[in-house]
Amino acid sequence: MKSNNDPGKEEIEEFFKNLQDKICDAIEKADGKKQFEQDLWQHHSGGGGRTRLIQEGAIIEKGGVNFSAVYGPASEDMKRQLKIEKDADFFATGVSIVQHPHNPMVPIIHMNVRYFELSDGTYWFGGGIDLTPHYINLFQAKAFHEKLKQVCDKHDVGFYPQYKKWADDYFYIVHRQETRGVGGIFFDHLNEQSLKKSKREIFNFVKEVGEAFAPIYTQLMTTNAGLSYSEEQKEWQHIRRGRYVEFNLVWDRGTKFGLATGGRTESILMSLPKEAKWFYNHSPANGSKEEETLSYLKKGIDWVNLEVQER
Amino acid sequence: MKSNNDPGKEEIEEFFKNLQDKICDAIEKADGKKQFEQDLWQHHSGGGGRTRLIQEGAIIEKGGVNFSAVYGPASEDMKRQLKIEKDADFFATGVSIVQHPHNPMVPIIHMNVRYFELSDGTYWFGGGIDLTPHYINLFQAKAFHEKLKQVCDKHDVGFYPQYKKWADDYFYIVHRQETRGVGGIFFDHLNEQSLKKSKREIFNFVKEVGEAFAPIYTQLMTTNAGLSYSEEQKEWQHIRRGRYVEFNLVWDRGTKFGLATGGRTESILMSLPKEAKWFYNHSPANGSKEEETLSYLKKGIDWVNLEVQER
Repeated sequence: MKSNNDPGKEEIEEFFKNLQDKICDAIEKADGKKQFEQDLWQHHSGGGGRTRLIQEGAIIEKGGVNFSAVYGPASEDMKRQLKIEKDADFFATGVSIVQHPHNPMVPIIHMNVRYFELSDGTYWFGGGIDLTPHYINLFQAKAFHEKLKQVCDKHDVGFYPQYKKWADDYFYIVHRQETRGVGGIFFDHLNEQSLKKSKREIFNFVKEVGEAFAPIYTQLMTTNAGLSYSEEQKEWQHIRRGRYVEFNLVWDRGTKFGLATGGRTESILMSLPKEAKWFYNHSPANGSKEEETLSYLKKGIDWVNLEVQER
Repeated sequence: MKSNNDPGKEEIEEFFKNLQDKICDAIEKADGKKQFEQDLWQHHSGGGGRTRLIQEGAIIEKGGVNFSAVYGPASEDMKRQLKIEKDADFFATGVSIVQHPHNPMVPIIHMNVRYFELSDGTYWFGGGIDLTPHYINLFQAKAFHEKLKQVCDKHDVGFYPQYKKWADDYFYIVHRQETRGVGGIFFDHLNEQSLKKSKREIFNFVKEVGEAFAPIYTQLMTTNAGLSYSEEQKEWQHIRRGRYVEFNLVWDRGTKFGLATGGRTESILMSLPKEAKWFYNHSPANGSKEEETLSYLKKGIDWVNLEVQER
């Protein structure tokens, strides 16, 4: 399935860089108060990144939109993690996003699109989007999955069911037996071998996932940011953020890989919220909104076919 | 080096259980306001534990003192983690403590003493104490190490240098290149083979480590709890607690082992503070007390021989 039309790493890197710009613009416009600040950094073996953070905005309390394109000889750590036996040069580029809003009625969101290649010619794409509401809104969760299904279906009707399940399994806090949020899609190691599609076709899918992010999240920002909330609801947000921290530091393979292979700590850990809390054995009251939210933090919910009313 | 005088698991369990009682009493007395609440729990394969938490005390904001004694067939996860090849029954007992105070001038402390045995007759003791000041007090850090050295020297003058270095290496936040605090002692896999001491002699050492905890920490509590502090210093405490969370969730083998082998999540994660914060790329001001503290969060400081003035 090789073709002359296959995208090279320069084209992919350029797309991701522009995607970062577009997403930052969209979030700034929706936030209306603060702008992203940028840190440029260089990777020890080659390349580098643009870490962008928005802090204390009108809607976003702390949000990162990171781009990087790094390369060099694969380190021993990387070879072990990726199960590569021979010496090789690598090239990795991607965009990674986490947004933590002030208002507990606005969900946390995460998106990542990435490309990796080795000097022996192997390559793969990976990525995903998942939504973590502090308070479940069934209508919005369903709409989120419908949008992702649309994006997937345009490229392969097999994608959504498979990548939705992959997200359920990936964004799972094993020791809590709960999902991080309402899931989304997750995919990895996409290439000609795994998909029977050309590199161009796979890249087109990944591009569309990346481009879906800004309209999805800015709508959630503007729709929910005006909702009122109590001190108790703010505290629940901090507890849910604690679970977000637990997932990212204990189970997220991307975070662990980054920290173990000498990635830039501050760029990796921009995913952590400004503030999180842990109460021993916290359990929401019977019949509460918090309990309702917890009841939806599980695998296998068929969001697209859920019958819900707008509210 | 086997002897008829060797302690059996019943004696060891009984000691740890009483140690939990004595330490809780001492902390309650020093705190003066709140008492520990107890949760009894059972392990799925046998045995169980007593999780005790003190919350919103006069001095301690959130502190756990846990005892457990669990047994049963070693699970596949446990065998993989412990590199055991054959089927075996295990027995594990220990006391584990983390105290998070309100006042940033009072350090966080951790202590653990534990015993593990397998049905094939192999056994080992492990444990450690380490201190994590939010603000370094050189005199107190030195006194802490002096006390630990005294405890070690009574049993073997080789212990302190070896276990102090082990703590430096263990309580290390690799991705930050900083130690969790000013260290202490750490030891593992102590038995007749590794030490050329009888089981009774090793147990006597572990007992004395456990018994050293209460006088060390209650003195720090009562000496420092009256010190005044600012909002900025409280914020710095929350940042340091964030590093504590990072260490425990990313690097602490005990936490990872517990979460991966189906340990009781709420008992394991009682080590997390009530509240922690993360600011992107935070860096203390030149010449500040925060910068001074950071400068001591490194391996290899010879605390016992450091020349310091009381302050």
